[in-house]
Amino acid sequence: MHNPQLNKQGQLQHLLTIEGLSRSMIHHILDTAMPFVSLADREVKAVPLLRGYSVFNLFFENSTRTRTTFEIAGKRLSADVVNLNINASSTSKGESLLDTIDNLAAMNADMFVVRHAESGAPTFIAQHLNRTSNGRVSVINAGDGRHAHPTQGLLDMYTIRHYKKDFTNLRVAIVGDILHSRVARSDIHALSTLGCPEIRAIGPKTLLPSHLESLGVHCYTDMKEGLRDVDVVMMLRLQNERMKGALIPSAQEFYKHYGLTEEKLALAKPDAIVMHPGPMNRGVEIDSAVADGPRAVILNQVTFGIAVRMAVMSVLASTRASA
Amino acid sequence: MHNPQLNKQGQLQHLLTIEGLSRSMIHHILDTAMPFVSLADREVKAVPLLRGYSVFNLFFENSTRTRTTFEIAGKRLSADVVNLNINASSTSKGESLLDTIDNLAAMNADMFVVRHAESGAPTFIAQHLNRTSNGRVSVINAGDGRHAHPTQGLLDMYTIRHYKKDFTNLRVAIVGDILHSRVARSDIHALSTLGCPEIRAIGPKTLLPSHLESLGVHCYTDMKEGLRDVDVVMMLRLQNERMKGALIPSAQEFYKHYGLTEEKLALAKPDAIVMHPGPMNRGVEIDSAVADGPRAVILNQVTFGIAVRMAVMSVLASTRASA
Amino acid sequence: MHNPQLNKQGQLQHLLTIEGLSRSMIHHILDTAMPFVSLADREVKAVPLLRGYSVFNLFFENSTRTRTTFEIAGKRLSADVVNLNINASSTSKGESLLDTIDNLAAMNADMFVVRHAESGAPTFIAQHLNRTSNGRVSVINAGDGRHAHPTQGLLDMYTIRHYKKDFTNLRVAIVGDILHSRVARSDIHALSTLGCPEIRAIGPKTLLPSHLESLGVHCYTDMKEGLRDVDVVMMLRLQNERMKGALIPSAQEFYKHYGLTEEKLALAKPDAIVMHPGPMNRGVEIDSAVADGPRAVILNQVTFGIAVRMAVMSVLASTRASA
Repeated sequence: MHNPQLNKQGQLQHLLTIEGLSRSMIHHILDTAMPFVSLADREVKAVPLLRGYSVFNLFFENSTRTRTTFEIAGKRLSADVVNLNINASSTSKGESLLDTIDNLAAMNADMFVVRHAESGAPTFIAQHLNRTSNGRVSVINAGDGRHAHPTQGLLDMYTIRHYKKDFTNLRVAIVGDILHSRVARSDIHALSTLGCPEIRAIGPKTLLPSHLESLGVHCYTDMKEGLRDVDVVMMLRLQNERMKGALIPSAQEFYKHYGLTEEKLALAKPDAIVMHPGPMNRGVEIDSAVADGPRAVILNQVTFGIAVRMAVMSVLASTRASA
Repeated sequence: MHNPQLNKQGQLQHLLTIEGLSRSMIHHILDTAMPFVSLADREVKAVPLLRGYSVFNLFFENSTRTRTTFEIAGKRLSADVVNLNINASSTSKGESLLDTIDNLAAMNADMFVVRHAESGAPTFIAQHLNRTSNGRVSVINAGDGRHAHPTQGLLDMYTIRHYKKDFTNLRVAIVGDILHSRVARSDIHALSTLGCPEIRAIGPKTLLPSHLESLGVHCYTDMKEGLRDVDVVMMLRLQNERMKGALIPSAQEFYKHYGLTEEKLALAKPDAIVMHPGPMNRGVEIDSAVADGPRAVILNQVTFGIAVRMAVMSVLASTRASA
Repeated sequence: MHNPQLNKQGQLQHLLTIEGLSRSMIHHILDTAMPFVSLADREVKAVPLLRGYSVFNLFFENSTRTRTTFEIAGKRLSADVVNLNINASSTSKGESLLDTIDNLAAMNADMFVVRHAESGAPTFIAQHLNRTSNGRVSVINAGDGRHAHPTQGLLDMYTIRHYKKDFTNLRVAIVGDILHSRVARSDIHALSTLGCPEIRAIGPKTLLPSHLESLGVHCYTDMKEGLRDVDVVMMLRLQNERMKGALIPSAQEFYKHYGLTEEKLALAKPDAIVMHPGPMNRGVEIDSAVADGPRAVILNQVTFGIAVRMAVMSVLASTRASA
């Protein structure tokens, strides 16, 4: 099957998932983000790259934090950004998803940033637009169900590359609720593509999906064993709804076994970095001493995240301009 | 009574209803929209015509779709657009409608785009502003009760003019719930003013208001008869609340008699166009084969709608500049 | 204790409260506002002073009206303004207030406009940012609990200065629910600092806090006595929730004793001005004849309010630029 996020020239037309992106494409996006990071230190942080563009934030699932990062990224590129909370609008009038998309596309939208509770919705939209809009409109997946969260994956890679330079000699541990995490999925695909030789998944058996081994991931249920000598610790957020579920006895119990404390972190390499996609549950998956400690790069992830989202938008815009 | 939407020089000060607008005024607005349509194909779709203007979207009735069209139109003209969902704010603090308006006007608002469930609310606001603001602030009616939806009427006229060039030899059918439709009202007034010689209304007797004949509209309860040899078919949205009501037996029954199918459409002229204001109820008032077929210009209406709203804002701004 | 809203050079770093601001600082802000008032009469009301700045409206307590004034002020300075209704987002995901702030600061925010139901929240945030962001991010208090509403206080001072020129010979009466009013607190501090020799508080005993006398304020329970020969009457909004409470028998009873009527206003000086922070309860704290009468400057307060908020943002930005 043709990869729906690339055009016939192999350029990025949509960003739907990290799966299937080439190593050079990922590095191209990260390279594009670099000047945007330094831009943030300047008095005027805006550039006119997307002036006159219309970017629609289509959030079928509420996420103020993620929506804000895309809104800021779009505005710093001088785009017109329109926020649409879709639950509250057309859908309640019984309009179909694709009619909503066609309508907004007919307003000469340039980009849709799509967040949806159902896996595959952004891809479904992108495939429809490929048929109808002649490559004029791009889709950016801002998180779909358990499937993917590619801009989070890319900003995580930006962060690792920033601190560790080279992926080909790294040992990376991903810790927590891997089963339900689209962040984990995106990170694993990105790390594999970038040549990371050892990816570890740490968590209770109930939260480690069975197909991980087939992706070359090493699974650990003992966190102390799993953290030994790693260069990067990527913590995952434990969803509130899991804490009351059958998969985890309690938040306290989870913290005891899989919460990142200074004691456990001492098993990693001395210069290991600690990452978290936020929002954090302090005292559940991570101790405050670690979250606010010298090895945490959690807020840097946020800063890099704006630059990476600006880079994704820029790369998509230049694909379009060259069409 | 003085027409409250014109100033003493007969220029457009507000857009409240199509009723009472001259043929030349309507064509002036449509002419103004033309360059904005082609603007949409350019890389930079923004023009600085309303730079520094403050446009307030005052939606007393929720309508994300309509609000978005005005937001996009205002931003492409470089205005500052502020969205206010009024239900959720001042009104709940017990402030009167006119105090809210006075307050926003005192913030040096330039335009109010008003959507309200009560017929006449935008006119009421415009008359108040004419007394208090010295013609400094314009009101655009974005739909009030069953009264009017003038920008929808204008974009419908833009669409017909685009495809049919001349109104003076056209046969136009409007189909569905005409009784409750502000869109139908606005379209009938516009078509009459533009010289359309034959306007037909098609629907069940319960949904055809008795005064239609006095407006020169020909009424049909048999859709097949009504569609014969028409140049334009304008479908209306059937409101969900009607489907359960006493006026219509059921959505299935309505579709059987008044749903636009390819079979029924075959009775119209071979080059007839099919319009719909959206959002569509597929399988209720229109069959998907027609909605997605070659004669439908429904998405073009949306595209023209942005340009027409930009035109209305521009015309109002130039009235003000000449004051 | 070091005043957290000033930097080491005594420049304004945050605007948290009027308490502790020097007379010259207040006049400096009001002077800065003056050109922004006349700007509003020009066709293009925008200036590029804050181009590329990111201003976050963080409203932990809903207030469409106040949020709109800051949104307009920011946009007229060409800043990117992002509205965040925080109740509906991260807090519901269990993230702490400071984690939310750190996150937004990491997106390279320049200013936070903070509204919060709890007194002291903006100061708490500013102190945290002073520790973590190196003076890069400013906080503007847009109303916190019963504590302060400094931009309202400043726009009130702008209004008084505009009409009365000199504070040092004025008699000012503040009327109504002073106990619960952050506006009254801010106004009293501002008037004292600016040298107003006679500040009066008028209201039922239950709504006059006991510490007023220690601030040099003269208390009156008899409104007629309190209004005698004053130059300025500042009415306060009676919160709806008070009207049903134990502190006031009823809205009607309150109006009888403390509602501003033309009859009562006749006791003030002939050129006295009437102010109200809005939204007004007509027929509760103020009669419509007064609210719409020639001495009311209530809508002028709104107009000056935009200019004053632009001035506050400009002063904070220039502090930062000089750092």
